[in-house]
Amino acid sequence: MKKIIKVGMLGIGNVGRGTYQALEMNHKKIAETTGLDIEIVKILNRHPEKDRGIDIPAEKYTADVDEILNDPEIDIVVELIGGIEPATEYMARALANGKSVVTANKAAIAANGKRLAALAQDNHVLLRFEAAVAGGIPILTSLTTALLSNRFSGVHGILNGTTNYILTQMSEYGKSYEDALKDAQIKGFAEADPTADVEGLDAANKLSILISLIFGVDASPAVIPTQGITTVATEDIKFAADSGFRIKLLASAREIDGKVYGNVEPVLLPVSHPLASVNNEFNAVFVSGNAVDDLMFYGRGAGPLPTGSAVLGDVIGVARKLEKDSAYDIVPQLRYDSDLEFAGEGTSKYCIRMMVPERAGILGKISTIFGEHNISVENVRQNSPYTSDGETVADLIFIVFKVEKPVLLAALEEAREAGVIKSIDNIMRVEE
Amino acid sequence: MKKIIKVGMLGIGNVGRGTYQALEMNHKKIAETTGLDIEIVKILNRHPEKDRGIDIPAEKYTADVDEILNDPEIDIVVELIGGIEPATEYMARALANGKSVVTANKAAIAANGKRLAALAQDNHVLLRFEAAVAGGIPILTSLTTALLSNRFSGVHGILNGTTNYILTQMSEYGKSYEDALKDAQIKGFAEADPTADVEGLDAANKLSILISLIFGVDASPAVIPTQGITTVATEDIKFAADSGFRIKLLASAREIDGKVYGNVEPVLLPVSHPLASVNNEFNAVFVSGNAVDDLMFYGRGAGPLPTGSAVLGDVIGVARKLEKDSAYDIVPQLRYDSDLEFAGEGTSKYCIRMMVPERAGILGKISTIFGEHNISVENVRQNSPYTSDGETVADLIFIVFKVEKPVLLAALEEAREAGVIKSIDNIMRVEE
Repeated sequence: MKKIIKVGMLGIGNVGRGTYQALEMNHKKIAETTGLDIEIVKILNRHPEKDRGIDIPAEKYTADVDEILNDPEIDIVVELIGGIEPATEYMARALANGKSVVTANKAAIAANGKRLAALAQDNHVLLRFEAAVAGGIPILTSLTTALLSNRFSGVHGILNGTTNYILTQMSEYGKSYEDALKDAQIKGFAEADPTADVEGLDAANKLSILISLIFGVDASPAVIPTQGITTVATEDIKFAADSGFRIKLLASAREIDGKVYGNVEPVLLPVSHPLASVNNEFNAVFVSGNAVDDLMFYGRGAGPLPTGSAVLGDVIGVARKLEKDSAYDIVPQLRYDSDLEFAGEGTSKYCIRMMVPERAGILGKISTIFGEHNISVENVRQNSPYTSDGETVADLIFIVFKVEKPVLLAALEEAREAGVIKSIDNIMRVEE
Repeated sequence: MKKIIKVGMLGIGNVGRGTYQALEMNHKKIAETTGLDIEIVKILNRHPEKDRGIDIPAEKYTADVDEILNDPEIDIVVELIGGIEPATEYMARALANGKSVVTANKAAIAANGKRLAALAQDNHVLLRFEAAVAGGIPILTSLTTALLSNRFSGVHGILNGTTNYILTQMSEYGKSYEDALKDAQIKGFAEADPTADVEGLDAANKLSILISLIFGVDASPAVIPTQGITTVATEDIKFAADSGFRIKLLASAREIDGKVYGNVEPVLLPVSHPLASVNNEFNAVFVSGNAVDDLMFYGRGAGPLPTGSAVLGDVIGVARKLEKDSAYDIVPQLRYDSDLEFAGEGTSKYCIRMMVPERAGILGKISTIFGEHNISVENVRQNSPYTSDGETVADLIFIVFKVEKPVLLAALEEAREAGVIKSIDNIMRVEE
């Protein structure tokens, strides 16, 4: 028996489209796993004439926000307008009307999270915003569920994909800041007005939310010292590289002796730090807990579908709570009921190390036997001959193209029986 | 008003001690954040005479499992004995008695998870096992909550710290397998009998659980093709390094055309893959979802406290469900109520790039002004002079030891006013 959960969505920009599309793609899987039938029933769209590049029935659109906020049928309001107002006002009205709210809006949560959270509590509804920090990366959920038993000494995040893309391009290809920014704009990683990203304001909003969750401290973006990447020059990048560092725009906070320090700033990170190899538009969050120790989450911090993944995850979380019968649901849920079947290891490229007699024609004979089994060789290397059991032998290392392992084993066995392989010493899969 | 949650713990080995210790360290924080007072009231200890190296009141110990399984006061049973039996029997009896169960036992869940999950459902209680896969890394919770809206095409995990430590030591220091294993045993990363780790059986148990959660498919460890690392030789490591690969023991599964393929095997991974730089005893799980795209979780997959963190996270999760009033709890929970205060950016090492007039004594003058402000220079570099506005100038890049940024800015301003700095072009924090 499926419970229908009705969702009203405010806004149909990039994230709105991604959320709608992710639900279309995965509606069946979500229903099978949770027993919940989630439907986006109304969408606030102030410009219905605009082509959104996605097929949504026209009757779902409304230009009147009240049709969503006042609809008694709607359980959950998803706010994807962005910006502090009118988003905050809409969320406040939804919560006051007894609807749970899911949002991706870092600016509104950083500015008004306290007020909205209190409203949610007063009205016995939920407010969730996983998508507001690091997009698809489930950092907020993890911090406040599975990792809740920790006290954290610090958090360090690459929380803005635009600036990370620019810094990576400057560092990897020696581009100037201006060229890297232009490139990011062409690729859709930077907006026409990139101020909020390149000046670090976007990252400061996200850090403000993390500081509240991790330390229980009110640090509004306005009090977080924030420096962007516009002063980072190729000289800085070069000096950093020569000195064993990478430059990253880091949003970080740490507790020392009862005080929480934090800021957003380009930082020289030692290349050995896990965050140093987070490149291009990817985000990552590194936390240090007093039980779990160092932990890093890496993934896409923006983009319609990754952000939509986080929005939908929150919608499912709220829906599960609304569904009283699922109070004893099993999370994580062991499942053995899908239509899929387990089929062993499949085909792969393989790397084989073997010992062969050192004489003319051996390589040709092995290759012939491989060929008879339809195994193609990508790469072969022979090391210097040596003596084993009074015989001159050599080690061969093959990489072969995709093959089923039993076929490979049969070919190797045939070659061994024919005396062209003395021993098969290791077989490893090659990941592509 | 705090709700007291009583926990009975089976076993007081490494993970038991870590769990107890993590709760001691963080009891206050957990209570403040959740309103839950979690108490470990009884501990099954078959060898009470053994010194466990931790201060636990003797009256908590019992040698009789029934004193825990049949105690009506106990809400949650935490199973940390390990091994399939008698752990499975104890968990089954706890569930049948209406107690929720939290376990770190991958072998028992891989072997009997289906039966235990059904028992939990029938008895309206919960079964959780976050600690069973990748220790402190919250992968199971994330997959089944925030990431639930995805269909996953694959999962790739470095799920065994022992083998990853051995392979890293072989690769970084050219050690032989035997020497690296001995080293791991001395450091406590490998057991006296390392079979379950080095033969890949431990990773196969964990992969079996991941395949159920991700694909809904029953792949018991016995049907997962499993190869350990005992055949990996220094020649393999060298060949891999020369060819742009690292060798990792990978537990992986992928869906292709309605079939799930998976195995545990040493794999040649391109060095550019995020998993390739997961070194030593660290674990990582890499998943690819159809909405969230690529995502990686990195952290400690073993050790008393990291595993205890995951166990306690599950205990808190169960406790929140038991606590009916928290049905509308706010997760993630914005908090502004801790005793901590936000104190700005604190002290850091800094990297400063500046333009200076090219004449004798400039560097000395700047250093003197730094010294007067108690700023110590770690490193300075001067680039070739050039002409700017008709004057010969040079770029200097300083790295200075820890200082408060306002102090640094004051010193720089003084130097600028004294004419020994023409412009301050960039200031960046240096992460240590």
